[in-house]
Order: sequence, then C-alpha cells, then structure tokens
Amino acid sequence: MQALPGFRDFLPDDCAARNYIFSRWREVARRYGFVEWDGPILEPTELYTKKSGAEIVGQLFNFTDKGEREVALRPELTPTLARVIAAHEREFKKPLKWFSIGRFFRHEKQQRGRLREHFQLNCDIVGETALAADIELVALCIDVLRAFGLTEKDVVVRISDREFWTDFLQQKGVPSDRWDELLQVIDKSERESPENTRAKLGKLADPVFVILRDGGKSEKLERLVDGLRALGLADFVTVDAGIVRGLAYYTGIVFEVFDRAGKLRAIAGGGRYDNLIQQLSDSAVSMPAVGFAMGDVVLGEMIREHGSPREKMQQAITAEQKIDIYIVIAKEERRPDALAHVQTLRDKGYRIDYPFTSEKVARQFQTAEQLSARLAILFGDEWPQVAVKDLTTGEQQLISNQELLAYLARSLSLSS
Amino acid sequence: MQALPGFRDFLPDDCAARNYIFSRWREVARRYGFVEWDGPILEPTELYTKKSGAEIVGQLFNFTDKGEREVALRPELTPTLARVIAAHEREFKKPLKWFSIGRFFRHEKQQRGRLREHFQLNCDIVGETALAADIELVALCIDVLRAFGLTEKDVVVRISDREFWTDFLQQKGVPSDRWDELLQVIDKSERESPENTRAKLGKLADPVFVILRDGGKSEKLERLVDGLRALGLADFVTVDAGIVRGLAYYTGIVFEVFDRAGKLRAIAGGGRYDNLIQQLSDSAVSMPAVGFAMGDVVLGEMIREHGSPREKMQQAITAEQKIDIYIVIAKEERRPDALAHVQTLRDKGYRIDYPFTSEKVARQFQTAEQLSARLAILFGDEWPQVAVKDLTTGEQQLISNQELLAYLARSLSLSS
Repeated sequence: MQALPGFRDFLPDDCAARNYIFSRWREVARRYGFVEWDGPILEPTELYTKKSGAEIVGQLFNFTDKGEREVALRPELTPTLARVIAAHEREFKKPLKWFSIGRFFRHEKQQRGRLREHFQLNCDIVGETALAADIELVALCIDVLRAFGLTEKDVVVRISDREFWTDFLQQKGVPSDRWDELLQVIDKSERESPENTRAKLGKLADPVFVILRDGGKSEKLERLVDGLRALGLADFVTVDAGIVRGLAYYTGIVFEVFDRAGKLRAIAGGGRYDNLIQQLSDSAVSMPAVGFAMGDVVLGEMIREHGSPREKMQQAITAEQKIDIYIVIAKEERRPDALAHVQTLRDKGYRIDYPFTSEKVARQFQTAEQLSARLAILFGDEWPQVAVKDLTTGEQQLISNQELLAYLARSLSLSS
Repeated sequence: MQALPGFRDFLPDDCAARNYIFSRWREVARRYGFVEWDGPILEPTELYTKKSGAEIVGQLFNFTDKGEREVALRPELTPTLARVIAAHEREFKKPLKWFSIGRFFRHEKQQRGRLREHFQLNCDIVGETALAADIELVALCIDVLRAFGLTEKDVVVRISDREFWTDFLQQKGVPSDRWDELLQVIDKSERESPENTRAKLGKLADPVFVILRDGGKSEKLERLVDGLRALGLADFVTVDAGIVRGLAYYTGIVFEVFDRAGKLRAIAGGGRYDNLIQQLSDSAVSMPAVGFAMGDVVLGEMIREHGSPREKMQQAITAEQKIDIYIVIAKEERRPDALAHVQTLRDKGYRIDYPFTSEKVARQFQTAEQLSARLAILFGDEWPQVAVKDLTTGEQQLISNQELLAYLARSLSLSS
C-alpha cells in the first residue's frame, strides 16, 4: 500500500528539508514583524464557491460529512483569512501583518512541481491601502528567497497591475461581467498557442498582444519598483503585463515569482485584493489587503538545483538529525549508572542515544558515528571514571563521572 | 461564516501557544535521539478499516474523491507509520526512533478536550522487542510533560499490560475472536456503570472486577517501573489494570496519562504493537514496535490550569510576537534613509517594523510599545544622526547612522 497519488511521505531526510524551509519562512516573516496564525484544514465548501476563481473550485477535495455539511479541504488560505479577519478585526490594530504555514490540497493532474497536497507560506497585510504595503510584501517575498541563498540571477519577480487590465477592458467598452473570463484568457496566454488566445479574445486580441509585448507600464508600477530599489531589491523585479493571476478576487498589484531559467512553474504569487474580506463578511467596513503565497514544491526544486542553496539545506538536514553524545555501555553492570547519566544529560538539553540491549563496543562506536554524535562516553571497567572520546578528533580522556557535566559544559555546545 | 464545529481558528496568540507546544515536543524528542518524519493527511480508507479498532473507523472523515478512490482524513498516525516502515525498513538501521507532529481528525461529538481536528505528537520505537525500549518511550512521554513544567503532582502515567489480559482470557477459555470485544468492555468500564459492564462481561465479571480492584501486577510491569525508577521518574507512574486502550492492535505494555485531579480526558496514550507493521505489509519480516501519541487539546488545558506552566507558556507567546526595533519616521523626507536601514537591520536578523504612512511621532511610539519593541530608532531632524531610545529604561541617545549597526550588535541580542 502506498500514499495516494500526489501525496507525499516525509522520511526523516525529507522532513528535515521541510523543517528547514519552514524555519527560514518563519524567521524572515518575523524579521518583517509578521505574526503567525492558522485556520482549519477543512472548511465549508461555500467559503470557496463564493468568491474564489472557477479554476480552484473545480479542483476541490470536497465532500458531504457525516453531519450532512458540505465541506472541502482548503485549496488556499485567503478565504479563511477573510473569514477570520471579518470575525475578529476589531481586536487588532491595523494594519495587520500576518503569516501562516500549512498544508493545502488541489485535486488536479499530477505534474512536475504540482502535487495534490503541498505546503504554503502565506503572508498578508490587511487594513492598508498605501503602496508602501505592496512594497513591504514584495520585499518580504524576495527576502524569503534570499534566505535560502537564491539571488537575482536565480529568480525573477514578474509584477503587473490588475487595474491596468480592468482600465483597458473598460476603455474598450467590455461589460464587467465578462472581465473575469477575459482576464483568465490573458493569464493563460503564455501557456496557450497564440491562435487559441486570439480566438478567445476576438477583436481585443490585437491591442492585448501589443500590451503583452510592450510591458504595460504605469506610474503605480514605477513607484513600486522605485520602492524596491531603495531597499536594494530592484534587480529581482521586472514589470510584465502577462501576469494577471487566475483568482478572481485580485484588484491591484499582482506578481509571480519564477526561476530565471524558465524551467519551473511559479515559486510564489500574490497581489492586492481590496474587496474580498468585505464581500465575504457582508460588512460595512472596508478591509483592503495585499498578500502572497509560496509553495514548498517548486521552491524545493529551486534549492536543489543551485549549489550554494543546496549545500545550506544539506547542512540543515544533517544538523537536525545528529545527536550530541552516544553513551557506550561496555559492561552491562554499568547500565544503571549509564542510564542515570543519560537522564541527567538529556535534562541539561543534550541529545543523547545509547543501546537498548547488550552490544559489542565496536558496534556501539559504529552506531555513534552513524548518528553523527560529537562525543562518545564509555561506561566500563574504568568506573567511577568514564572515557570521553571526541569522535571528530579521535582524542580520548578519562574523566570522573562527577566532573562529567562540568567538562561537557566547557567542551560541547548544544545542538539546536 | 464560522469554522466548522470542532475545528479551530488560531489567532496569533493561539498560534504562538501552539508553536510553544510544538517546540517543546520537538526539543525533548530530539534529546532522546528521535528524528522527525510525517505522512499525508489523506490516506486510503482501507489503511484504517484493515487493522484499527472499530471505534476509530466509525469516526472517520471519509469520502470518495474525484478519482473514485475511497479516502479518509487520518484519525491516527500508526497505520501510516506501518505503511511507511514496511516500504522503507531496509533503508534504516534498527531500532528506529521516529517522532511526528501533525493534524488528526475524528468525526465525533464535540466535548471538553475532544475536537474534530487536533494536533498530536507521535513517538515510536520500531524494531526492538527489549523492555528497555518501552522504558525509553514512557520516559520520553514523562519528560515531554516535565518540559512544560508539569510535575508528578500534576500528572500520572497509568500503565498496564495487554498480555496480562489476553493471558487471563485464554485461561478462562474465551475464544480469541471475542478478545477485542471484551477488551473494549474492560477499557470502557471506568466510564460505564458497573451494571452495564457486568452485563457485557457475563460470567467473567467477577474475576475482572477483582483484577481491576487489585491492580493486575506482573513481573514485566515491575521491571518497567524499576527502569523508570533508575531514571528518577517512577513517581509519575502507577500500575493499573484498568488501562487497556481501545485500539485493537496493541500486544503488550499499554499506558495512558491523566491529570492527577481526574478532571480531564487522557493527555497521552500508547503501548506496544508488535504485529501491526508486519500484518499491514504482508511481510515476512517481524517489526515489533512501541509508541505513544499526545494531543494538544487536553495538554493545553493542563498547562493553563497550573500556575508555573501557564506562566512559561505566556512568556513564550509574548516572545514569539514581539519585535526588536521600531523605526520611527519623524520626517517624511527621511523615509528613504529609514527604509534603507530597515532592510539592513532585517538582513542582520533583527525583527523590525515601521509605519507605512505618515504618522504623528507619539502615535509611532505607542505602536512600538504595543509591539513590545526593545528599542525605537527615530529618523528626523538630527539626521545623519538617529535617536535610539531604549523602551524598557526610557534612556535615549544620539548615534551616527554609520555607527548604528555596531552599537546595536553590542546592546541588543536577537529575538529567537
């Protein structure tokens, strides 16, 4: 029996890689003053059918539960954020800077970089219309990537403005109930044949193709790039009208992050959604917001394809799983003394392992090395002294068991 | 619109409390040389119907997915562990010491300490029959509780042995296909009226009640308690034949952790399951195992009901959300200089926040205090000097912007 298609088992190395990604995500979000929150993994299906793009709703893992409720595994976090903010916004000073790390689900065809269960970092600023918030959010997205050792040579943030396109559609006299459909066509144009896109756009095709070729610049986008330049991050960014985003709720700046080589799917994406929270909550209070999500799958591929980021991750994987000290029990009659020390050392915070049953000393040292222990402490004939061996240098010395703790405090810093 | 019944939203304070629990769980498991792993949240329903207790299967969130697969949200981790170990056991040296932290789901009536979505720490030792592994596992469970500041006055580990009961049923000539049902009755006897239990047990009632009253001691259980005594943990433990565990797959030592006051549901539970992995994998290889799970809900209640554990948690909640430095922009023309410093300071690892729009200085200092910032740095008329104010002492001094980083490195350690 295997995991379901599109779902992953995380063996210890995989889980350590995942923890490494999560801890960098958390660390950088906190440097930006974002605080962590989370919602349930299962939500009322209505939360997604109400306002998300049609694309997502067709890919829901949804079902009727034993209480006859229509429920769905969350495909994205934004509707939950809107629900939670609408219920609690009075408790918090605006703007809110919130991030979240968790699992998301889409029932779609498996393909490279796209699984049915994946993890996302979501970062949102709520309650601020100023472009400074958009700049802060894009900067955070870039700095998260920099924290993995990725540079402007590896990744590019393609930025556009939904308003640019909705202004265009308005000028062309397109009724607003067709905008979502046309924006989806423009969003997909990069992955479609020009003929198909042309057919779907009709008489709008020519002006749209001109804009896609020439960029679609605006004063707002220029100010955004200027803001990122002041932070030293402008080299990561390019203005690109081809970025529209599939979700219906975006209202302003939208962006997606890609590998420069253009081989992978988007690493992250987001934008401004000034109406969603108010609409979902049927509230009188306006609650403008800007946010992005970054998945673990394509990011993991990016990290593994670049030398320095890959090495940093590998070091973290090793560090997470190594122990500090292996206790070698050379004589079984010393086991009670050894176990008492195991307990004392663990209480002090050291990572300790030892054999459950009688084993040859050579085999115990072998285990100690496999576990990347820094030290081995041997309980045997020398008792009440113990032999402390540094497994890096091979140096060994006898120490009284009573002086052991003080000796270790001097010579060994804790794994973290 | 609200979260589904039995599901929780985690606002920042709730999420920080959850992170505090997770980080203590991880820290202690790693001290014991356990490595982290994880599985999917959705599994084939068959994984649970095959070997788990009937109780769990009736409470599954299960459905048919869009690919006509019978799937279920995981109610527990052990069947996934068995699946993963069966597929990968040759890649790892035995015994395996694995832990996992994640979400689990049960569709049952909401009651105190029992939600439909909750989090669990799972710890398992696989590939070791020696009682030393059972001792290590119970010790880990106790030390996890100690890490929250809970003592032997607050919690008790009630330990029994399934073999004790199966030996008893065998002696009484009960056919083995009735054991599961009778063990469930004994397991539930504490929460049922004696009359109901008596009716279900029939002629076994009298001897069972004698054993429940007198304890059900055995040589194996004595050795287990002796082992914990050598570690200084025996005061946490009591032998108690009333502990049987609802799941069908246990084969040896079983235990549950309760609050001494007896007000709450079990905080944790586990035991030995020597046959499950082999059975699930239809393998020729024997794969004995012992494990426990601890949920976040009852543990959270325990922590909140005890003074010192509650204070430790509260400190962690505050520490997680505070920032290091608030950047006060007293003159808007200094914003670019301020932002350049924001970026530099975040790159150094400091947690930094600042106002997105022009605000009165007094209001900015108010925000700095609300965010529990240690320092405020004011960019204003004194430029190219900045005013650094210690928000704890109220002391303030002017520093050249070029000397700022060196000054901070001396005076401010990073939040972690």
